Amino acid sequence: MSVLIVGSTALDTIATPKARRERLLGGSASHAAAAASFFAPTRMVGVVGDDFPKAHLNLFRKKGIDLEGLQRVPGKTFHWEGEYETNMNRRRTLKTELGVFEQFRPDLPPAYKRTPYVLLANIAPDLQLHVLKQAEQPRFVLADTMDLWLETAMADLKRVLRRADAICLNDTEARRLGEEENLIRAARRIHRLGPQWVIVKKGEHGALLSGPNGLFLCPAYPLDKVVDPTGAGDSFAGALIGWMSARRGRPEKVLPKAMLYGAVTASFCCEGFGLTKTAAVGREQIEERLRRLKAMIRL
Amino acid sequence: MSVLIVGSTALDTIATPKARRERLLGGSASHAAAAASFFAPTRMVGVVGDDFPKAHLNLFRKKGIDLEGLQRVPGKTFHWEGEYETNMNRRRTLKTELGVFEQFRPDLPPAYKRTPYVLLANIAPDLQLHVLKQAEQPRFVLADTMDLWLETAMADLKRVLRRADAICLNDTEARRLGEEENLIRAARRIHRLGPQWVIVKKGEHGALLSGPNGLFLCPAYPLDKVVDPTGAGDSFAGALIGWMSARRGRPEKVLPKAMLYGAVTASFCCEGFGLTKTAAVGREQIEERLRRLKAMIRL
Repeated sequence: MSVLIVGSTALDTIATPKARRERLLGGSASHAAAAASFFAPTRMVGVVGDDFPKAHLNLFRKKGIDLEGLQRVPGKTFHWEGEYETNMNRRRTLKTELGVFEQFRPDLPPAYKRTPYVLLANIAPDLQLHVLKQAEQPRFVLADTMDLWLETAMADLKRVLRRADAICLNDTEARRLGEEENLIRAARRIHRLGPQWVIVKKGEHGALLSGPNGLFLCPAYPLDKVVDPTGAGDSFAGALIGWMSARRGRPEKVLPKAMLYGAVTASFCCEGFGLTKTAAVGREQIEERLRRLKAMIRL
Repeated sequence: MSVLIVGSTALDTIATPKARRERLLGGSASHAAAAASFFAPTRMVGVVGDDFPKAHLNLFRKKGIDLEGLQRVPGKTFHWEGEYETNMNRRRTLKTELGVFEQFRPDLPPAYKRTPYVLLANIAPDLQLHVLKQAEQPRFVLADTMDLWLETAMADLKRVLRRADAICLNDTEARRLGEEENLIRAARRIHRLGPQWVIVKKGEHGALLSGPNGLFLCPAYPLDKVVDPTGAGDSFAGALIGWMSARRGRPEKVLPKAMLYGAVTASFCCEGFGLTKTAAVGREQIEERLRRLKAMIRL
């Protein structure tokens, strides 16, 4: 089954303690769609300006991503610049130039409206709501978000949460949204805002799934070298919903393994700047790493 | 088979954001022995002063811990005072009064010398070496340590590492000992110092085992309330070696499950001040929680 992914498409300038790269292919939708496309036909909705490099479009095409929903308009592509600290666990934003993203309305092409699996990747909650209004009877809606929207758009975010099956957010965001320092209690309170499934991402410490059957503890794939963690959370969410849609099956059955696929796909994302490593690996490498990860949690 | 545990026996004064308790039963050997005693006959070597409360001795006895190696001498018991920050992940030491611990020599009673499983709980590395000199053909030696010894007694610690089968330390200590920010690479470098097994404790994020068969990723048991994490790492190590000695079997076979038992036993430790919760639960509760934890990592 197909996956619909709506989010940002960006050019990222990223500095790590060891290197700096300019105008990399980035954005929540780009990372999520590249990850989902390993597993399922993927439709992407986003916007780019007329400065968007053809090589980036070719990467999407090479991965078989349906670009009918990618708007190309005059102006500059959304540009983000960020810098990582020594241990790569913290970053700060140096620059955000919205460009064509400022006027973005995620209108779905008619053929996209009945997509069964929908990932609302990280964008403003009012845009996520705009997508939900157009989606016709989706089977499963996963929403991602970020700290900015918790501070500036809580009312809209709560509207998204009432309509999403699952929410995916990091530990800091979960603590803030759940108004609880303890993650288990925070997840419990987030359920009350709507979603049946709460996924808390903890970076190198893995992720936590809270659902009707209790908890699932998903490890991160241990890496001995992290080049650039930008987009790891988006890759995680994209691979998760991509694998779910390929596998079908009830969420309670497929979500744990979908999370492991998310962890493995995100690990490749971290091993290169932007999408370079994700673009270079194939499904076989993902399966190989999944086998290794499963062996690391087997008793 | 029996377990020998050598470490500190202390009175702890602990302040958390919510409460403060004075002169609790504490110390690395106390926590580790209480945890090990769920699984195996446990021999404890330590020292207490003449101010050591009878109730604490009775707790050890109630748990069946062999106290022949517990020296009782005139003077004051080692006293530690610490304070936790809001999120309980950080603490600072307010007071350390060594008392009778200053003159402590962990001499083993003759009956202890052939104990097959040995846990060198956290004490000065020269004392750990003194135990190793007396131990006769131990089957498995697990050494624990702390940041203080990395700064003040590295030469002795390295001597311990050359003779231990396994080392257990937290993530900050592993980074320091391995001189590597990345934990996987740090573990690799610690192997080169001697131990075949490196166990990195990450608190609420679980623990990592690195050994000849690769990695095992052990989750922490998720708690919705942490009362006092003091001794959780000691409980983890104590339960781990206790279960190993009960199960026998080759380390590569039994260590992963031993770590899960460690995680579960440590979770009880965190739910009460000092040893109060550990003393109140029985083996059935540990098994019940182990079943739940296993369900949380099952695909």
